Amino acid sequence: MARVTVTDVAKAAGVHPSTVSRALKPETRSLLTEEVATRVLAVAAQLGYHRNTFAAGLRTRRSEMVGVVLPDMTNPVFQPILRGIEEALDAEGLVAIVANAGTDPDRQRSVIQRLLARQVDGLILATAARRETSIDLCLAENVPVVLVNRNETTHRACSVITDDAAGMGLAVTHLRELGHTCIGHLGGPQTASTGAGRLKGFTDAMTQAGLDPTSTVAATAFTREAGEPAATRLLNASPDLSAVVAANDLLALGLYDVLRTRRLRCPDDISVVGHNDMPLVDMIAPPLTTIRIRHREMGLQAARLMLDLMRKTSEGVVDIVLRPELIVRASTAAR
Amino acid sequence: MARVTVTDVAKAAGVHPSTVSRALKPETRSLLTEEVATRVLAVAAQLGYHRNTFAAGLRTRRSEMVGVVLPDMTNPVFQPILRGIEEALDAEGLVAIVANAGTDPDRQRSVIQRLLARQVDGLILATAARRETSIDLCLAENVPVVLVNRNETTHRACSVITDDAAGMGLAVTHLRELGHTCIGHLGGPQTASTGAGRLKGFTDAMTQAGLDPTSTVAATAFTREAGEPAATRLLNASPDLSAVVAANDLLALGLYDVLRTRRLRCPDDISVVGHNDMPLVDMIAPPLTTIRIRHREMGLQAARLMLDLMRKTSEGVVDIVLRPELIVRASTAAR
Repeated sequence: MARVTVTDVAKAAGVHPSTVSRALKPETRSLLTEEVATRVLAVAAQLGYHRNTFAAGLRTRRSEMVGVVLPDMTNPVFQPILRGIEEALDAEGLVAIVANAGTDPDRQRSVIQRLLARQVDGLILATAARRETSIDLCLAENVPVVLVNRNETTHRACSVITDDAAGMGLAVTHLRELGHTCIGHLGGPQTASTGAGRLKGFTDAMTQAGLDPTSTVAATAFTREAGEPAATRLLNASPDLSAVVAANDLLALGLYDVLRTRRLRCPDDISVVGHNDMPLVDMIAPPLTTIRIRHREMGLQAARLMLDLMRKTSEGVVDIVLRPELIVRASTAAR
Repeated sequence: MARVTVTDVAKAAGVHPSTVSRALKPETRSLLTEEVATRVLAVAAQLGYHRNTFAAGLRTRRSEMVGVVLPDMTNPVFQPILRGIEEALDAEGLVAIVANAGTDPDRQRSVIQRLLARQVDGLILATAARRETSIDLCLAENVPVVLVNRNETTHRACSVITDDAAGMGLAVTHLRELGHTCIGHLGGPQTASTGAGRLKGFTDAMTQAGLDPTSTVAATAFTREAGEPAATRLLNASPDLSAVVAANDLLALGLYDVLRTRRLRCPDDISVVGHNDMPLVDMIAPPLTTIRIRHREMGLQAARLMLDLMRKTSEGVVDIVLRPELIVRASTAAR
């Protein structure tokens, strides 16, 4: 029979898991009303709950917090990733604290050092550059670290990423099937594994399809604002394009802005494929065809890897690679 | 002449403020390359920079981190608020750490307690219920606390909020000028000051305009998902409505979903006004007419109040109330 968890007790007692943790710990029990504390303890006894030594250990020695470091908190794509991370941590009574570290490596190190100084129990980094140095900080302090969304080249840390080559293959195949042959790539920053991997994935897929893979421009950031000048350069350099595959949805929105300015219609004049399926792209005009990454799953898996590392139940470096999926909406049409 | 700040030195030296802080502090200088450290120190000397004793004090005694507690990190409205908070904190070498505390008061207290246990230098709470109890935790620990976006009824803490009555007045006046008389309100949770204040603002504005103010339904959460059933109830109870004012943009999106299901056209059949002007509502179909809250300004002001409290340069409770603005797009039309 499976071990009874805090979550099981919470469900049975109709309270939040943190309330159960509170009730089980003598020093925090007084924070609850007596009625709630008594009820939770009764349910725990009835279900045969045994206090998890892992969680109990954390509770006495550590912060019960896992740091999550993002490059850009305003990118909606991180919302479902965070939700997945929080769901998995919450079930173990842990809280995620999120810090926005930007893209400057020096600032990233500074943020990570502060979190380490406050003894977070682990760090989940969405900031990884392909040549990432801040992992050293975590390894030196013996703090578990998991990379999410982006990977680095030395493979010293566990990661959960999406299959960028497969995603680009889906996008190019979809456009080919619609009759497009002049296809461009609005790329992301090449310092990130996602930017580099998607450019490579696009180039490989185009080459394999016997098409010219050279119409590519890389934006300086994964934002709508950076997408606009990059899209302008792409359209100026390759005026024959009938379709563009963007390296993420925000870049695709920057391309939408340029198309609107130039009075070009999407999809009539140019088909656009995004990447991520971030919240709300189903509602924009026209609704965006995109490559869906299972972001919530990505967050859940990252948190589970973190919990395994904290429990020391797994050893060695693991990379979890999620398969993306093509979501066809109204921004792509037959040539 | 104004005091030279870390930000001034950073700009002049072409580096990030945290790099300047690093260079100025002997114990962290080795984290930089010698070239960068030397250059920053030369620029600082040239500009006549004097180390801020406030920041220096923090650096030795405290965490250099301010906790920001959100009710729902997935609500895009918090992105510009966070950006404003970070900008202001960053200029002083402080980092914001963000925790998602949900809407359960017990969980909120648990999150706040953990942050306090890690000695954050202050807490900015976007979670306040009208009857908020977790402020006590901060006051008891003598940790500065600022409320942002939502206020509570006892006025024990500084806050930065928007003028909900003014916002609802703008929405109702706009619809009246378009000839609408049957106007409904898709409200938010009444436990939050924003939900209660916008319902009251709507009712007052309608009454003042001599219109029936009773077509209102309150959703259980400020989400697209909660907006859908609430919008269904509103339309069923008041089939004559020609316009709806939603208490936030996500609720308006839930209403869009219902209109689509019922094959009602916006704005031809029903005009919709949102509230917040969150990112991307300019791109949805139809682009949403909404009440713009200056969220970045809200974040900046909240962080400045926090810095004042930390420096003890201000005393007593201050409420900063920002004026909202009507943004007319394509979801509203003449009756």
